[in-house]
Amino acid sequence: MAEEPASCVVGVDFGTLSGRAVVVRVHDGAELASAEHAYAHAVLDRTLPDGTRLPPDWALQVPSDYLDVLRHAVPEALERAGVRPEQVIGIGTDFTACTVLPVLADGTPLCDLPEYASRPHAYVKLWRHHAAQGQADRINALAAEREEPWLERYGGKISSEWEFAKALQMLEEDPEIYHRTERWVEAADWIVWRLCGTYVRNACTAGYKGQYQDGAYPSRAYLAALNPDFADFVTGKLDHPIGRLGSPAGTLTAEAAAWTGLPEGITVCVGNVDAHVTAPAAVAVEPGQMVAIMGTSTCHVMSSDQLGSVPGMCGVVDGGILPGLWGYEAGQSGVGDIFAWWVRTGFPASYAERAAAAGQSPHEYLTALAAEQEVGEHGLIALDWHSGNRSVLVDHDLSGLLVGLTLSTRPEDVYRALLEATAFGTRTIIESFETAGVPVDELIIAGGLTKNALLMQIYADVTRRPLGVIGSTQGPALGAAMHAAVAAGAYPDIRAAAHAMGKVRRGVYRPDPRRAAAYERLYAEYRLLHDHFGRGADDVMHRLRRLRAEASA
Amino acid sequence: MAEEPASCVVGVDFGTLSGRAVVVRVHDGAELASAEHAYAHAVLDRTLPDGTRLPPDWALQVPSDYLDVLRHAVPEALERAGVRPEQVIGIGTDFTACTVLPVLADGTPLCDLPEYASRPHAYVKLWRHHAAQGQADRINALAAEREEPWLERYGGKISSEWEFAKALQMLEEDPEIYHRTERWVEAADWIVWRLCGTYVRNACTAGYKGQYQDGAYPSRAYLAALNPDFADFVTGKLDHPIGRLGSPAGTLTAEAAAWTGLPEGITVCVGNVDAHVTAPAAVAVEPGQMVAIMGTSTCHVMSSDQLGSVPGMCGVVDGGILPGLWGYEAGQSGVGDIFAWWVRTGFPASYAERAAAAGQSPHEYLTALAAEQEVGEHGLIALDWHSGNRSVLVDHDLSGLLVGLTLSTRPEDVYRALLEATAFGTRTIIESFETAGVPVDELIIAGGLTKNALLMQIYADVTRRPLGVIGSTQGPALGAAMHAAVAAGAYPDIRAAAHAMGKVRRGVYRPDPRRAAAYERLYAEYRLLHDHFGRGADDVMHRLRRLRAEASA
Repeated sequence: MAEEPASCVVGVDFGTLSGRAVVVRVHDGAELASAEHAYAHAVLDRTLPDGTRLPPDWALQVPSDYLDVLRHAVPEALERAGVRPEQVIGIGTDFTACTVLPVLADGTPLCDLPEYASRPHAYVKLWRHHAAQGQADRINALAAEREEPWLERYGGKISSEWEFAKALQMLEEDPEIYHRTERWVEAADWIVWRLCGTYVRNACTAGYKGQYQDGAYPSRAYLAALNPDFADFVTGKLDHPIGRLGSPAGTLTAEAAAWTGLPEGITVCVGNVDAHVTAPAAVAVEPGQMVAIMGTSTCHVMSSDQLGSVPGMCGVVDGGILPGLWGYEAGQSGVGDIFAWWVRTGFPASYAERAAAAGQSPHEYLTALAAEQEVGEHGLIALDWHSGNRSVLVDHDLSGLLVGLTLSTRPEDVYRALLEATAFGTRTIIESFETAGVPVDELIIAGGLTKNALLMQIYADVTRRPLGVIGSTQGPALGAAMHAAVAAGAYPDIRAAAHAMGKVRRGVYRPDPRRAAAYERLYAEYRLLHDHFGRGADDVMHRLRRLRAEASA
Repeated sequence: MAEEPASCVVGVDFGTLSGRAVVVRVHDGAELASAEHAYAHAVLDRTLPDGTRLPPDWALQVPSDYLDVLRHAVPEALERAGVRPEQVIGIGTDFTACTVLPVLADGTPLCDLPEYASRPHAYVKLWRHHAAQGQADRINALAAEREEPWLERYGGKISSEWEFAKALQMLEEDPEIYHRTERWVEAADWIVWRLCGTYVRNACTAGYKGQYQDGAYPSRAYLAALNPDFADFVTGKLDHPIGRLGSPAGTLTAEAAAWTGLPEGITVCVGNVDAHVTAPAAVAVEPGQMVAIMGTSTCHVMSSDQLGSVPGMCGVVDGGILPGLWGYEAGQSGVGDIFAWWVRTGFPASYAERAAAAGQSPHEYLTALAAEQEVGEHGLIALDWHSGNRSVLVDHDLSGLLVGLTLSTRPEDVYRALLEATAFGTRTIIESFETAGVPVDELIIAGGLTKNALLMQIYADVTRRPLGVIGSTQGPALGAAMHAAVAAGAYPDIRAAAHAMGKVRRGVYRPDPRRAAAYERLYAEYRLLHDHFGRGADDVMHRLRRLRAEASA
């Protein structure tokens, strides 16, 4: 007699350039198959689709690209998995954030209205749209001046990437679009709305990106003081019922069933964020288990039973990662991006030839050379601020530094110094948590950089903590699928789902006492430079940036 | 009727890897021909010719290589010039310094004695032999403690490269060789001794490298305090009649006439140093005309009627460049070397391909890209200490720094920042002179880097001074030939010879007021970093170097 076919869930991870669907078996988390679909418009950072030019620092997307992921990646993953649609009991999603768009009351994106096709503010503002810094600066200054209670939940500063800064920019630069906006929606929630026909605001982005704390948003009086026309932003465009993570937002509509090939009526989970959803995928469901999702940048997420005010964190949100715990987020704005910059810059032709002859990528080649060194042998220290500093300094106008260069400094020396600098950055973040009374007991790494064993060992040595590694290359999509399983009732809560479906190898890398001791000395140097250049003793980085802006103007 | 054939002089420049002879017409300085001869043993920095291993930081040479230059380059230059030997009225030489060797009383180098062929201390110690730092440190500490009067003539510190440090190292590491040494001779003087059979110590190296000031060397009491066995070093091995620059040391011996093809009995000029001899070649014979000889490193020489105590200069010597004026020397230990380091490190394959397609060298290609930028556009500041800092900090354990790096920093950005950093270094030196009451009115550039027009313009803009350029690619050999003309009586003094035979294009590069103003701001940043890292506020560079040494051990 044939066995009963196993129940499955589908997780869909909406990234910066593409979406990935993965089909996951409910009872053990096995990833049966996955498929990826690239966004046709990728990131609009120079022009709109009709050729309209964009100013510097803009980054937009086109919402119909997200629907194409549902149409293509989901059916393809199902087919590859050899899973019949009836086996699928739920679908969950995760998204980049804060990625946000203006829509009508029925969810229609303003950029889909023909009359607004040439209006940049009608499009999705991608997380890395950085043109609202002026607004963010005013938001922070005013909040500090008025001692707004929510400010310390964000380490003292909110980001220009978030909902309020981006909305205020829209109001001040294109009031017509602002006034036409009936809902200012996270893409994480918009895609769920498209799947189930119901708009539910997820607790994660509402808290981390929308300053929703203790049941309230920033006050009307505060918003009016920012800009009188902004006074009704929350009541008019933002406020909306909030759904707990891992709870059902609704059921799949006939239209979405047709897109995806999934059965109408299955559970659609409340939206979530790529980094946060990765924590349970890596079985980090206890207080003090920090997950670092390391790719072009790094996002640190951790739950805790302690509420602390951590200077320079991105935010702390009640139930922001796991219901019932305080969820913390911090980050490093450049990590893999910085290593890639060095490969673009400091990888000479002779190296390229030898790497090609050895069948190695530039990263593999430089890593192999760097791995031969003792700690401190290159004589270098770097500051990993090529893309600014998110935590703990929250200053995107900082820049990278290299000291210790000699005529015998080689490309692999700089490469290793850059790897180390990002590890020092992570340790700085961990220490900021611990100083604020929020213990960090364990570090688990997820993301593309887990494949670099030297980098992982450096992180273990520098942080003096055993390092776990997630057991999946599709952490976010797996996490989204796990939340769908919970929403569909297959598990009582995400903690139970994590233990059954999540994947982690604990203690894969352990600190070597000798190397760790040597790194203490280098880390002390890093912190000296960090504070000297990052806290205003020498404000040269800001002055150089101003000079650069003037010279380029 | 045939014209009387013009009188000529021969100048021979002994460099680090080869010697060059040039035949120069006396009445107008025309360079009729030149020839180069590479030293067969180049620099011994790993082993002696017999395979004996050398410790790190050693750099030796073989004296017979210098004689080969006389045997090959001089006759070849004469032949190429189409000059008959009888036309030549004198020969002059210049040498690297302090390049010094132990000899017997008749001038025989100890390394030529078969019993000492395996003894490193029997060989010529090249200027860049850096293994006597421990001795130099003690020399400086004791001189400071005893307030030795000569110390301030060297900016407060003497170098490990000089005569006393190298001799003390020999005494302490191989006393047998030390005690067998009858004369401790500059190679600049040894080669003259070989040419004319007479040992004359030249005023330039005696002052700059031998601490000969106001008619005296460091005292016997001081030397005894350094090391009791060193007490008689001056009286026993160093002291010797000193010859004025541009005066005859003797006449060409029959043996040297046979080597060179020149007539026996012609004038042989007193020895001299490559950088110093270049000043009159560039017609820098008045107070305040600073000549910067820019190659792998830069040497600054200037005469003045003012005696000042310039912190961090290499030295001030009465008649050290021109009889009757105080001759100053300062330097930057890495210049072209640093640009070459970046080309080795930060010149990716894609750049190499485009440069090759354009028929440009890496330096030309990066320079062309860098030249398109406005001042400050790259957003970077560098410290040019990859090879340490000679003036004004006199600290070879400093290292290079780059700040302002972003993910969009390109190879040409770093290249330009490095060019600029060396210009800031030169300005720092000029300001040190002026603060000490020694005016610098004009800057004249000689050496290989004069061919980089962008670099020259940056120096004009940064120093806010019109920039002259020497009119010869053989500045040192031309200068040596000019001194020979004076010694032979063709001119009353070197000033007159310079006006007739020297070559300079004055004011070739003039500061652009807009760029110069922008550079004021960058220079202020350079000085902040210079003082922070160079004067001990953050001693990270020294600590990194110690850590590197421990890790490499």
